[in-house]
Amino acid sequence: MTSRERAAVEEANARFYRAFEALDLAAMDAVWAHDDDVKCVHPGWPLLTGWAAVRESWQAIFANTEEMRFTLSDVHVVLHADLGWVTCTENILSDVRGRVAVTAILATNLFARAGEEWRMVHHHASHVLGAAETAQS
Amino acid sequence: MTSRERAAVEEANARFYRAFEALDLAAMDAVWAHDDDVKCVHPGWPLLTGWAAVRESWQAIFANTEEMRFTLSDVHVVLHADLGWVTCTENILSDVRGRVAVTAILATNLFARAGEEWRMVHHHASHVLGAAETAQS
Repeated sequence: MTSRERAAVEEANARFYRAFEALDLAAMDAVWAHDDDVKCVHPGWPLLTGWAAVRESWQAIFANTEEMRFTLSDVHVVLHADLGWVTCTENILSDVRGRVAVTAILATNLFARAGEEWRMVHHHASHVLGAAETAQS
Repeated sequence: MTSRERAAVEEANARFYRAFEALDLAAMDAVWAHDDDVKCVHPGWPLLTGWAAVRESWQAIFANTEEMRFTLSDVHVVLHADLGWVTCTENILSDVRGRVAVTAILATNLFARAGEEWRMVHHHASHVLGAAETAQS
């Protein structure tokens, strides 16, 4: 049971990153809880509170992003009854005029169980300083 | 009961910042769970996992800090059974050669209930870009 729950939280986490990569707001709608309590910290941004503000931020990010590719590493899930918290490193590949860069972002993602589903209630992402590696392609 | 639990989590959060301000490792020992699962992200640092690594980081930070003063704002507690998660802004005052600066750090703090106690299991802190305000004193 616990390992099934753990897999469900890990899958909810993966679903979040698939929605992000696809720049798909409808998919993001299905990932998050739509509560006043949900919160989100994009790297360097102030805290956003409530689903309306969080959704608006994704809409703005998706409108201003052409391509987003993640490789996740160090995904770690901890379960506490109906709350699962995940830490992971988002390794983001970008290609700007032939200059390929990898940016490492650390994320804390919280998921709350609602019936059979695990919905995201908090996302806190921040840069790891000095972790960026750049390569000329 | 819920409001009592909420107050207990808020107090555990305040205790964490008191230990930090006091640069008191014994107090920090009493704030955290001592598990392999605990995690910590200091602003810009990579993820630390396990109490031994987390404790070592506080030891290093305390050894290299002369003074630390926080004002907390926007403290918000969400409870999920035996896990409480807190978001808050750490407004850090520093005075370097008469130049007073306020640095805004956003923190996500997770506390797990162990009997009657709430112990910290995760701390994720990150800079809010462009939020620093500087004043000449």
